[in-house]
Amino acid sequence: MPTLRKDPITDRWVIISPTGSKKPSGIGQVCSRITPEDGPIGFCPFCTGNETATPPEVLAYRQAGTKPNEPGWTLRVTPNKFPALRIEGSLDRTGEGVYDKMNGVGAHEVIIETPDHYGRLSLLAQKEFEDVIWAYRDRIIDLKRDKRFKYILIFKNQGAEAGASLPHTHTQLIALPIVPQMVNEELEGAKRYYRYKERCILCDIVRQEINDGSRVVSTNDDFVALEPFAPRFPFETWILPRQHDSHFEDIKKNEAENLARIFSDTLKRIMKALNWPPYNFMLHTSPFDDMVVEYYHWHFEIIPKSTRVAGFEWGSGFFINHTAPEEAAAFLRDVDLTDFK
Amino acid sequence: MPTLRKDPITDRWVIISPTGSKKPSGIGQVCSRITPEDGPIGFCPFCTGNETATPPEVLAYRQAGTKPNEPGWTLRVTPNKFPALRIEGSLDRTGEGVYDKMNGVGAHEVIIETPDHYGRLSLLAQKEFEDVIWAYRDRIIDLKRDKRFKYILIFKNQGAEAGASLPHTHTQLIALPIVPQMVNEELEGAKRYYRYKERCILCDIVRQEINDGSRVVSTNDDFVALEPFAPRFPFETWILPRQHDSHFEDIKKNEAENLARIFSDTLKRIMKALNWPPYNFMLHTSPFDDMVVEYYHWHFEIIPKSTRVAGFEWGSGFFINHTAPEEAAAFLRDVDLTDFK
Repeated sequence: MPTLRKDPITDRWVIISPTGSKKPSGIGQVCSRITPEDGPIGFCPFCTGNETATPPEVLAYRQAGTKPNEPGWTLRVTPNKFPALRIEGSLDRTGEGVYDKMNGVGAHEVIIETPDHYGRLSLLAQKEFEDVIWAYRDRIIDLKRDKRFKYILIFKNQGAEAGASLPHTHTQLIALPIVPQMVNEELEGAKRYYRYKERCILCDIVRQEINDGSRVVSTNDDFVALEPFAPRFPFETWILPRQHDSHFEDIKKNEAENLARIFSDTLKRIMKALNWPPYNFMLHTSPFDDMVVEYYHWHFEIIPKSTRVAGFEWGSGFFINHTAPEEAAAFLRDVDLTDFK
Repeated sequence: MPTLRKDPITDRWVIISPTGSKKPSGIGQVCSRITPEDGPIGFCPFCTGNETATPPEVLAYRQAGTKPNEPGWTLRVTPNKFPALRIEGSLDRTGEGVYDKMNGVGAHEVIIETPDHYGRLSLLAQKEFEDVIWAYRDRIIDLKRDKRFKYILIFKNQGAEAGASLPHTHTQLIALPIVPQMVNEELEGAKRYYRYKERCILCDIVRQEINDGSRVVSTNDDFVALEPFAPRFPFETWILPRQHDSHFEDIKKNEAENLARIFSDTLKRIMKALNWPPYNFMLHTSPFDDMVVEYYHWHFEIIPKSTRVAGFEWGSGFFINHTAPEEAAAFLRDVDLTDFK
C-alpha cells in the first residue's frame, strides 16, 4: 500500500509508493565519475596551472611560499566566471504594475575542492575534506560583512545530469539579497512547531530518528546521517548536527572533523550503492540577520539525481518516490566500503 | 545586468540572467518526437488492439457501435497499471512521533489522447484536441463525486527526459486526498492580493500582460498564452482564460474550442522553436471544496525540459533562468508555422 507522508517542517506531502525492487530505477544509469580512461581532459580552468583562466582567487589554501593565482594550492575559491549575480551595484528594488524586481546583486563563487581533475569529494582524505568545510565557513564569514546580503546558498552539482557545467569537482556559493522562499517556509514551519512545543523540530527529529534507527545511515559523536521521513527523492539523505545549532558558520573544530568524517562516509556509501550517480547537495542554514535561532537547525541535504523523477513535481511541488526511506537506509547501511577507491 | 524578479502569486524570486545567446543551452538537444524511422515500436499498451494490456477503461470516445476495451476508440482513459495511489481504502490518518502519514488513497489514470503511436498533442486536429480538453473535464467531474478527494492534478510528461515511461502520447491524472502545498501557496498568495485589492491577481496579470504585450505569445477571444514575468525555466509558458474562472471543469463549449486552438498553436511554436523538446505541463485549478473562488484563476503551465537546469533549485526553491521571458516570447511569436507537420 502506498502511503502519503508529510514533511513536518515544510508541510510538504510525499507519496511513498515502493515498487518492490531493491534499487530505484533511473538511478545508477549514468556514472558521474571520470578517470583517465575517459580520454584527454581538454582545457580545464580548474586544474593547476590554469589559474589565470578564472577570475582572481578570493581564498586559497596553499603550500607555504606559493603565490596567489599560481600553482601550489590544495583548495581554491574564485568568483564564477559566468556569474548569475553581480557583486557590484545597489539593489534598486522597483515595481512594474503587479510585479516586483531588483538588480541582480550578489556573489557567485566556485570552491574548487582539489587540484586533481579526477578527484571527487568522496575520494578526498580526511584533512582535505575538513578544508572544504573550512572553506565554506570562511567564505560565509567574509560575505556576511556585506550588508546587502541576507542569505548564502552553498550547493554542489556533480555530473552534467545534475547541472554541473564542468566535470572537475567543485562547490558553488551564491550570496543573495533576499532569503529564498523555500528557506523562509522551512523557517516558518520550524517556528510554528517551536511556538507550540518550545522545542526545535529538527532536534526532535534527530532524537526520534536515532531512537528509532530505521532511517539512520550512520552516526558519530556530533552528527547523524539519515533518510528523512518524507523524502522527495530515492536515497535523499540529510546530515544533521545532533546538538542544536542554527548557523553552520558557528561550527567548532571537532565538529568540522566529525562532519568531514560522516559526510565522506555518506557520499562513499551513495557512490558505491548507486554507481557514482550525479548528485546535488545543499546546505540549509539560518539567514544572516538572525543571531541565534532557537527553532532552526542547520543541515545538509544530499540528493542523488534520479532521471526518472517525473517533471510534474515542478508544477505541483508534489513528489512521488518509489523507494521507501527505510529501504534506502538499510541499503546504505549495508554497503561494504572496505575496497572503496 | 541580471535581475531578480518575484512571482507575484507565490512570492518566489527568480534570477533572470540572460547569456545573450538566442536559444537557451540545454534545450533542443533531445528530440521527444518519434517516427517510423526510429525503428520497430515493440509492444505498446496504448496502441489500438492492445486494450487488454491496460486496466479496463473508465472513459472512451469511440466510433458508434464499438465495444468498451476493444478497438474503435479515438481517446481512451484507463487507470494507471502502476498507480502511485490506490482507489480502494480509507485514509486512516495517523501520527508517528513528530510525523504524520495516511494511506495512499487516490486515483491515478492515464488519458491516451490518440490511438496513433506517432501522434503528438501538437499534431492533433482541432476536434481531437477539443476531445482531450473534454476528457480532462469529464474525469474531473466524475472523480469530484468521491468525497475522499480534495484535488486533481492533470499533467503531462512528454519524453523520457521529462519523466514519461512510455513514448505513446498520454496525459496523467492524479486525484489526491489533500491539496498539494504548492497549490495551497498559490491560493494563499492570490488570497492575500485579493484581500488587499479586491481583485483577482491573475485577472490583473492577464490585463497587464495583454496591455504590455512584450511577454505575450498569442491571444484569442477567450485565452492568452504568455511567458510569465518570473519564469523558473527558459520558455516556460502559461495559458490563461482572459475572463475570471476559478475551476477548469466549468469551461464552456466555445471556451474549450478556443483553448484547444491556443494550446495547439502554443505547443506547435514550442516544438518548432526548440526542436520537439521533452516537456511537462500541468493544470492549476481550484480545489474541489471551494465552489466559486473570487481570487484564483485556473491556467496551464507548460515547461520545456531544460537539461541544464541546475539541480540546486530542488534544494532551495530558487531558480536561475538564463533566458529572459521577453526574449522567449519574441522568439515564439516569430515562429513560422506554415510548414509545420
